Amino acid sequence: MKIAVLGGDGFVGWPTSLHLSARGHEIHILDNLSRRWIDTELGVQSLTPMDSIQERTRIWHQGTGRRIHFHLIDLARDYEILKRWLSEHRPDAVIHFAEQRAAPYSMKSDRHKNYTVNNNVNATHNLLNALVEIELDAHLVHLGTMGVYGYSNVGAAIPEGYLPVGVETLAGETVSQEILYPANPGSIYHMTKCLDQLLFQFYAKNDGLRITDLHQGIVWGTHTPETKLHPQLVNRFDYDGDYGTVLNRFLIQAAIGYPLTVHGTGGQTRAFIHIQDSVRCIELALKSAPKRGERVKIFNQMTETHRVRDLAELVARMTGAKVAYLPNPRKEAPENELVVRNEQFLQLGLNPTTLEEGLLAEVVDVAKKFAYRVDRSRIPSVSAWTKDIAPTIERDPEGKRLKSVG
Amino acid sequence: MKIAVLGGDGFVGWPTSLHLSARGHEIHILDNLSRRWIDTELGVQSLTPMDSIQERTRIWHQGTGRRIHFHLIDLARDYEILKRWLSEHRPDAVIHFAEQRAAPYSMKSDRHKNYTVNNNVNATHNLLNALVEIELDAHLVHLGTMGVYGYSNVGAAIPEGYLPVGVETLAGETVSQEILYPANPGSIYHMTKCLDQLLFQFYAKNDGLRITDLHQGIVWGTHTPETKLHPQLVNRFDYDGDYGTVLNRFLIQAAIGYPLTVHGTGGQTRAFIHIQDSVRCIELALKSAPKRGERVKIFNQMTETHRVRDLAELVARMTGAKVAYLPNPRKEAPENELVVRNEQFLQLGLNPTTLEEGLLAEVVDVAKKFAYRVDRSRIPSVSAWTKDIAPTIERDPEGKRLKSVG
Repeated sequence: MKIAVLGGDGFVGWPTSLHLSARGHEIHILDNLSRRWIDTELGVQSLTPMDSIQERTRIWHQGTGRRIHFHLIDLARDYEILKRWLSEHRPDAVIHFAEQRAAPYSMKSDRHKNYTVNNNVNATHNLLNALVEIELDAHLVHLGTMGVYGYSNVGAAIPEGYLPVGVETLAGETVSQEILYPANPGSIYHMTKCLDQLLFQFYAKNDGLRITDLHQGIVWGTHTPETKLHPQLVNRFDYDGDYGTVLNRFLIQAAIGYPLTVHGTGGQTRAFIHIQDSVRCIELALKSAPKRGERVKIFNQMTETHRVRDLAELVARMTGAKVAYLPNPRKEAPENELVVRNEQFLQLGLNPTTLEEGLLAEVVDVAKKFAYRVDRSRIPSVSAWTKDIAPTIERDPEGKRLKSVG
Repeated sequence: MKIAVLGGDGFVGWPTSLHLSARGHEIHILDNLSRRWIDTELGVQSLTPMDSIQERTRIWHQGTGRRIHFHLIDLARDYEILKRWLSEHRPDAVIHFAEQRAAPYSMKSDRHKNYTVNNNVNATHNLLNALVEIELDAHLVHLGTMGVYGYSNVGAAIPEGYLPVGVETLAGETVSQEILYPANPGSIYHMTKCLDQLLFQFYAKNDGLRITDLHQGIVWGTHTPETKLHPQLVNRFDYDGDYGTVLNRFLIQAAIGYPLTVHGTGGQTRAFIHIQDSVRCIELALKSAPKRGERVKIFNQMTETHRVRDLAELVARMTGAKVAYLPNPRKEAPENELVVRNEQFLQLGLNPTTLEEGLLAEVVDVAKKFAYRVDRSRIPSVSAWTKDIAPTIERDPEGKRLKSVG
């Protein structure tokens, strides 16, 4: 297949591109490299030393003989360029990772809120609009988030996108219907993924686009078999307060002797998936496209659920690290249950990578290897969800005053 | 009250501004005048000769002694200017009409789809973002649409925004919940109003903004008591295939001896409201603001429902006009039932203006008076919902070939 990977320079985009290239697909990365620019803006960098995309693809070709093509395109801003590219290359599938993906970054200031809404909505809508305009029947696979469901305590299992409900008719009977799960986003970032969902529903209904939306849990780990082939193919590893995901942050914190930062009680239950499985799920989704005219296919892309404090205690036991309970910069339920259905990927053959201590230790080893590159001042989460919350998160776990934001 | 009317130069915005000014409120219109630019783009104009906003407000002041202030601001593009304006003026309420509001225009071409999404989402989000940023606790009243509900035949009454459903829990019990009515938009325009809804839900939950969302039916009529005070205060009257609303289009068609254009079977049932009631509803909503921390208050702003072909036949009987059944440029159910709840406005004292022949005749008189200004070639709807539909709507009811679009 000829596959366009939008956002193929990112944390999930890059290993996905390698994985699919290794399996013989013709891969074209379209990326505006905004994630690298945001590193520059925030003064942070990947823990792992990350080469340019041009250099990475050169190394991949040198080692495997396979080419990954790179095209510098800003999907959100350059509709006409995107349309022309799609029209000329006519890929069989488009994988869409090209969105600002950090909740704390999206809540940093009014400028960051606007950027996230503008960038994510326009990137997704430009893509849908162009597919219709050039009459390209490519399968669109989008990376969404479990966060569209919200984390309230409804006491029901989270279905894969569609919820069966009973509705009372005019005649007083209750009829059963399946509806798109009611969105309950917890941040501006999560909200943009809810907006995406509505865009997908409309374009599938009105124009018959074939769309798969992956509601992904929190990714942990860093290596896949392909990124391990050469030091310069290494994946990015974010540990900062904006882009670092919770488990990876605990692992780097443990590696450098920094307290594991738990926000609130740590009673938040979240869904998780290892980066290897994330990449495999995308391959499975590609093979299982909806037919033209079918509704949007939604998968829950996660393999297990954990409470945040349980993860902290697991890493603490394993490494001897201390746990620091800090005020929560987010506005969210302090404790929640979470039961998630994920039968679709299991039925397609996903064999989950579980949260074993061996694999956790591997990540700690990566962290230790590059510990000299860590900037401790970038570890705390400084983005507050509201103006009321901001003054409550003034100090980091080492007692230093945090820089104000915005 | 000091009230900012965003989009106060438009079809509902202008009579609302006059109505509220007449009742002693301090009115500030913020508008980028895009609707006038779109007239220029399409080569159409209001049937009624419409003066500049500066001239209109001058006439209003001359006749009543009241000032309506006008500020040329583009909400979607000029976030910083909007924020500064709100911060300096700190209005008690903000009424938000400032969105591209025609479904056919939104479906005209890929450029129009992008414009509508970009303009509407950014206008709404910029406003919400600014209110939070400057910590302004103004009541936000937004003009939405009945179209967010969609027009499928569920056999249930459309509630005012929130739908009670039964959901099965993990324990196998069915619990009752109220959810935001599942969105089912029929065009890009309607979809943007669904996106707005999610933005409102988030900002009400996260930041405690006080928001009222009015799901309005199709507006008909043109005069309100205030617009009748002086010829230069007249409201706009759109009759073209993009911006003209169905009943007003029938009335102008009848006035000039053009066939009444029914698309498809005319079995589409829609909700209607007279412009006078629309304006009164907005005043009632202003007086009934939600409290800080309450969920978004949603009203159905409509007074009656009718099938499109019944309206055509009513106007035909009244005026002797012919009815022309044309292929439908829209992708929608050919026939639907529609039962809508609107108790909230009735309880607040709304006394509906019904679809009486007298009032219809008044509109026909307006149409006849300005019939010399009608451009017959602008009457047909030329925007097709999909590329498959486009070739099926090639000719107008007089047999002329339609210009291709896009």
